[in-house]
Amino acid sequence: MNRRRFMGTTLGGLSLWPLAGLTQEITASPRLQERVEDEPRKRLRELGIRIGTLETGPHNALTDVEGVRVGQTTIIKGEGKGAARTGVTVILPHSGNVYEENLWASAFNLNGWGEMTGVAPIESTGLLRTPIFLTGTYNVGIVYGAAMEYLSRLNPGMGVTEETACPVVAECFDDFLSDTPSRPINTDDVFKALDGAKPGPVAEGAVGGGTGMMAFGFKGGIGTSSRRTGDKDTVGVLVMANTASRSELRIDGVPVGRKIKGFNPQPGKTRSIILVAATDAPLLPFQLKKIAKHVALGLAQAGATSHTGSGDIILAFSTADRIPRDKRAPFRDVRSVSDFWITPLYQAAVEATQEAILNALTMARTIVGRDGNTAYGIPLDQVRRIMMKFSSID
Amino acid sequence: MNRRRFMGTTLGGLSLWPLAGLTQEITASPRLQERVEDEPRKRLRELGIRIGTLETGPHNALTDVEGVRVGQTTIIKGEGKGAARTGVTVILPHSGNVYEENLWASAFNLNGWGEMTGVAPIESTGLLRTPIFLTGTYNVGIVYGAAMEYLSRLNPGMGVTEETACPVVAECFDDFLSDTPSRPINTDDVFKALDGAKPGPVAEGAVGGGTGMMAFGFKGGIGTSSRRTGDKDTVGVLVMANTASRSELRIDGVPVGRKIKGFNPQPGKTRSIILVAATDAPLLPFQLKKIAKHVALGLAQAGATSHTGSGDIILAFSTADRIPRDKRAPFRDVRSVSDFWITPLYQAAVEATQEAILNALTMARTIVGRDGNTAYGIPLDQVRRIMMKFSSID
Amino acid sequence: MNRRRFMGTTLGGLSLWPLAGLTQEITASPRLQERVEDEPRKRLRELGIRIGTLETGPHNALTDVEGVRVGQTTIIKGEGKGAARTGVTVILPHSGNVYEENLWASAFNLNGWGEMTGVAPIESTGLLRTPIFLTGTYNVGIVYGAAMEYLSRLNPGMGVTEETACPVVAECFDDFLSDTPSRPINTDDVFKALDGAKPGPVAEGAVGGGTGMMAFGFKGGIGTSSRRTGDKDTVGVLVMANTASRSELRIDGVPVGRKIKGFNPQPGKTRSIILVAATDAPLLPFQLKKIAKHVALGLAQAGATSHTGSGDIILAFSTADRIPRDKRAPFRDVRSVSDFWITPLYQAAVEATQEAILNALTMARTIVGRDGNTAYGIPLDQVRRIMMKFSSID
Amino acid sequence: MNRRRFMGTTLGGLSLWPLAGLTQEITASPRLQERVEDEPRKRLRELGIRIGTLETGPHNALTDVEGVRVGQTTIIKGEGKGAARTGVTVILPHSGNVYEENLWASAFNLNGWGEMTGVAPIESTGLLRTPIFLTGTYNVGIVYGAAMEYLSRLNPGMGVTEETACPVVAECFDDFLSDTPSRPINTDDVFKALDGAKPGPVAEGAVGGGTGMMAFGFKGGIGTSSRRTGDKDTVGVLVMANTASRSELRIDGVPVGRKIKGFNPQPGKTRSIILVAATDAPLLPFQLKKIAKHVALGLAQAGATSHTGSGDIILAFSTADRIPRDKRAPFRDVRSVSDFWITPLYQAAVEATQEAILNALTMARTIVGRDGNTAYGIPLDQVRRIMMKFSSID
Repeated sequence: MNRRRFMGTTLGGLSLWPLAGLTQEITASPRLQERVEDEPRKRLRELGIRIGTLETGPHNALTDVEGVRVGQTTIIKGEGKGAARTGVTVILPHSGNVYEENLWASAFNLNGWGEMTGVAPIESTGLLRTPIFLTGTYNVGIVYGAAMEYLSRLNPGMGVTEETACPVVAECFDDFLSDTPSRPINTDDVFKALDGAKPGPVAEGAVGGGTGMMAFGFKGGIGTSSRRTGDKDTVGVLVMANTASRSELRIDGVPVGRKIKGFNPQPGKTRSIILVAATDAPLLPFQLKKIAKHVALGLAQAGATSHTGSGDIILAFSTADRIPRDKRAPFRDVRSVSDFWITPLYQAAVEATQEAILNALTMARTIVGRDGNTAYGIPLDQVRRIMMKFSSID
Repeated sequence: MNRRRFMGTTLGGLSLWPLAGLTQEITASPRLQERVEDEPRKRLRELGIRIGTLETGPHNALTDVEGVRVGQTTIIKGEGKGAARTGVTVILPHSGNVYEENLWASAFNLNGWGEMTGVAPIESTGLLRTPIFLTGTYNVGIVYGAAMEYLSRLNPGMGVTEETACPVVAECFDDFLSDTPSRPINTDDVFKALDGAKPGPVAEGAVGGGTGMMAFGFKGGIGTSSRRTGDKDTVGVLVMANTASRSELRIDGVPVGRKIKGFNPQPGKTRSIILVAATDAPLLPFQLKKIAKHVALGLAQAGATSHTGSGDIILAFSTADRIPRDKRAPFRDVRSVSDFWITPLYQAAVEATQEAILNALTMARTIVGRDGNTAYGIPLDQVRRIMMKFSSID
Repeated sequence: MNRRRFMGTTLGGLSLWPLAGLTQEITASPRLQERVEDEPRKRLRELGIRIGTLETGPHNALTDVEGVRVGQTTIIKGEGKGAARTGVTVILPHSGNVYEENLWASAFNLNGWGEMTGVAPIESTGLLRTPIFLTGTYNVGIVYGAAMEYLSRLNPGMGVTEETACPVVAECFDDFLSDTPSRPINTDDVFKALDGAKPGPVAEGAVGGGTGMMAFGFKGGIGTSSRRTGDKDTVGVLVMANTASRSELRIDGVPVGRKIKGFNPQPGKTRSIILVAATDAPLLPFQLKKIAKHVALGLAQAGATSHTGSGDIILAFSTADRIPRDKRAPFRDVRSVSDFWITPLYQAAVEATQEAILNALTMARTIVGRDGNTAYGIPLDQVRRIMMKFSSID
Repeated sequence: MNRRRFMGTTLGGLSLWPLAGLTQEITASPRLQERVEDEPRKRLRELGIRIGTLETGPHNALTDVEGVRVGQTTIIKGEGKGAARTGVTVILPHSGNVYEENLWASAFNLNGWGEMTGVAPIESTGLLRTPIFLTGTYNVGIVYGAAMEYLSRLNPGMGVTEETACPVVAECFDDFLSDTPSRPINTDDVFKALDGAKPGPVAEGAVGGGTGMMAFGFKGGIGTSSRRTGDKDTVGVLVMANTASRSELRIDGVPVGRKIKGFNPQPGKTRSIILVAATDAPLLPFQLKKIAKHVALGLAQAGATSHTGSGDIILAFSTADRIPRDKRAPFRDVRSVSDFWITPLYQAAVEATQEAILNALTMARTIVGRDGNTAYGIPLDQVRRIMMKFSSID
């Protein structure tokens, strides 16, 4: 049985960097092994590259927003027909039960050739009421059903005496590496990701929902980053990156994508990116909409400009005020950052978005998928060299 | 095995009116039987009541828009724990393959405490690319997955050499009659509805996705109506009505809900309504958005005003121009009704929406569901008497 | 000099009802005089007609929301070329300086063939920062300029050390009675309306911005109404009604427009309606958007369904939390009604909207305008007779 | 009389580059003169800097979209109280009468602390029906009124037998250089800009509506650029740039703003940018919305990320199909680029936006305004040096 799963989230005790080596062990065959490059993967900052001027949080991750937990199930199975390189990444938006204690949220549809379920109620109530699930296109139905089951188990009154919620399930299309219509994911996989969700470091690259994703013609996937403002507010961003073409890639403005040699990608279909931003700053839904728009600006600064067919959808939420689903309470007393003080949060969103996307790239190792399709990890030595050239001129 | 299903769509050869009698036969037990009222169900016009001034199409149904097909699977099973009164209603938006030939469409979120998937791509591309599925809340995952499977089978290139599509799956919460978390629906049920989809008369009331739905404190469900403008354009509306409280009900302005005696409903949770409008008039997406808003005005004229917790979401599409998914064609030559000529289409949408909602009521027989919960069919004799009083004064 | 102006707001000490008689005195010539009907105008409730079930506030007006003030300048001048039947209605959203203390607000564009300036900043900041001005189409530039001047005078720092604000100026087209391109309004007229703004009763019908407006083929104009919920929240609505055709008119569902005899209107151009809702309930911007949508549903229940060419735009604001424009305060602590408790506010908005529109009709006397164009006040005796017929059947 | 106006548009016969010199002559006093730097202004391409890979149109301007005309009135007057550095820039969207022949259009509100009038009808009808006016905040009322007068003169039936239109007037706040509340602009100034509108080269920098604007801490104003796709479609962008802080400035990704020495700006208020995109590619309103969003991405790539208080509003229109305001024609046969072919237009919008913003900077000379406030033209020699350093590393 060559089906292998591992929970990125069970590796929490280790530093993240061994993860890259570890994930190589799960490749299924000598043929895959030999094509995996040896270079250990690093996060952008480990390459000495900094985006912007704000400091990061302790893990430089979405989970730096206190209470946010991430769980991931990675599915790597087979090589030909039925080959799977897919999975699911789950974001639990706070440390409690988000069905019982909701969070202000808002979505922005930058270029919507893709799916994010659960958006209508967020726009209408301003509230995020469920975990957020990121996965491959063909997994949406299974994951949606699993999400409803999870919510029902956790909340026995839901759908009985209490109203239901519409889970947020977003997708990109992982067809280049995965035989997607075979739909290898099942309800248990989703529960494992939920059960394993935890704070702290987040596995990046070819893990969870990002297992089969591409970005800028290289292997993409899950990436994350965070920023702290001078007011000690944190903004974290997590992306499932499956987007853009190589020539577009910019790292801190440097046209790295045009300078890299070799590792040429197969010509690909247009792809998508899902971006999730969290903050502990108290922002109301209309302000979170503006954060989401600024995430789009960060995406642009990384060079990606939403081609046709790209489902580029952004969700932003704030953990500052938990809004109880208490029907007896007529009022909610909430706090909101003054718009006059919001610019640093915009800056944090723009910077963290860029770095999250770039972390997805630099942390993603080479993966061989269905029919021998190969997604190369971006060559870190070349990245470092190109960036040094540009920075050395000062 | 007391699980009983029937396909409203296999009954196409019969007139619609025997349908009401027929569906009574499927009730599962003497205890249910004795509580079903004997009164045969009628459509609003059969009661002598007309809404507005425009004429209807031949079937007074969504299917009067040429090419539109409707299929329904109704699931009625058991009485206590695990009791199911649910199903799925499928709208095939034209006579061909909507993945290959798309239609202009637009959605309007009137009050979004509910789910309609597939909206982001419609808003971004202006195009409806899949059938439309209406079902109960807990069925969304299964139906979404089945929809992807259906699309893949019909289009072997989808997800292989060609881009995927995001199916439109919308829901209301049928918990009063159905033990919804048991999720009795499966992929086959969805395929049966798809396979059985056909033009012509549409079964109404407690069928398909509407099997377990309530409206105005009575049994609601599926209802449909259509209008023809003086320019020979048709607007059809189909609703899955699970909305509003009794006192709100208005029929042609008459406060029927406040006048009806007896058949008191259990106090219920707030509920929802999904409304789908189709037209053969050539309308572009921004115009279909306006049609969708006018559907909301029709909903208001029937007395329903979107309570908290109500997921009132509207989709409108035009069958006039089929937009081929032909990547080689750089242009699409399309036609658009002049905005100066659009008012009759607004009127048609408002009138057809009211009548579709009222047909859902007058065609829905009494249903006993889980734990003996009873949804009464609106008493037609009282409706007729109240309306006669008001109309007799001229 | 036959130019006559009067300030509705200087008449505050009088009961409102003499106003109708009083405004007749300002008509400019015997020829006008003799065509003005003698029937004294009444508000809908004075005719014994009630809309809905909630109670009204003390004045049944927008001003029942504490702190809201209304001022109006009415301009009636000449009869032929250069004839003016126009003016401006100003809403001061609270008793203080709204530039220094902002209010949560949101707009909804139901059918946007019309102008409401200042909407982009409301949507982006959630805040209303200026008074609201309602006027005729050709007056928008003058009124906008006057509004900026007013804001600058009141706030000497604005545009110097402090940021500016974008005033909300909305219009309908009063061309049937007024020679609109002559633009008879000037900055002083706007200042007079501002200076005269006051709480308490509001003059209705052919006053202020509504002086030249039509509705349902009769004389329309300014109308207002309010509702109190069981939680002691108030919702007030003020409309500038210039909308719909006679056959559409519904009063409490009764098709009064189709029953009225005589007083036939000239066939007219499609017209518009501006609707402003205020509440003292603490609602956040996304909730005020839903209130604005429910105002649209109330419009529909009065029978108006947004024809082509109609600029039907809605603004809603809450007076509960004043948000200081204090750049030093990093946070705003605000209160928000739980969405579970919001339904009565929806009902209040729907009911008050209907009654405000109908008050605009029943309070508007016959006006003869440019080129002898006559807008008839709706015949109140007929209205009363028709409504009695329908209500007597109980 | 030291009031000086000049029409950028009367200088059409000259090459653009002498314009810079010419505009220096209008400075009002020796004291101003001596502070104007001598360096002749150049467009970005004259500095040897290219943005992106697509070719420009012949004038590298919005006017490369055939039929688009631009006219500008520049007002420079006085130095202290009452000092004016303001004006108006008018875009005539095609060579005919846009009230009689409308164009598809759509707006996108990126960060809306600013005004763009006329947006509601564009969103509702999909049509641009008037010229577009760019000006200073305090001029909006005057310009709006002048626009209505212009439309009435040109279309004697408008507001008489025919419906009116709502002009598009957008603003940024030019207070740093101009004593804005003095409102030095008048109706004639607007008419002059309209009368002088012409195709061909467009004056940039401190002209028209941009006369008093700042960008990235330097003198900003009007800038324009265009791109041609491989399909021979043109996208032109014109901006009125009053945005961002110096450290944000990126030229082709290079952090030029952080490298420039001296010419330190006074600490300023947050400012805004208005961006207008035109294309001759046949795009429908929902597609133009996507073009507008891509303009926002181009803005981000130039380094500007919409601070609080910034009114960053985008309008996009297509000249391909002129939609006649002919009420007798029930249909409009229109063409639309397939979404599969739209990506080059996105790229064109992103590239042209960046270059338009940068042209506004490099073409804007130093201006001394009210109270001696000085806006420095960006030092071109430093720009050139910094860019050469970065490009020389290849």
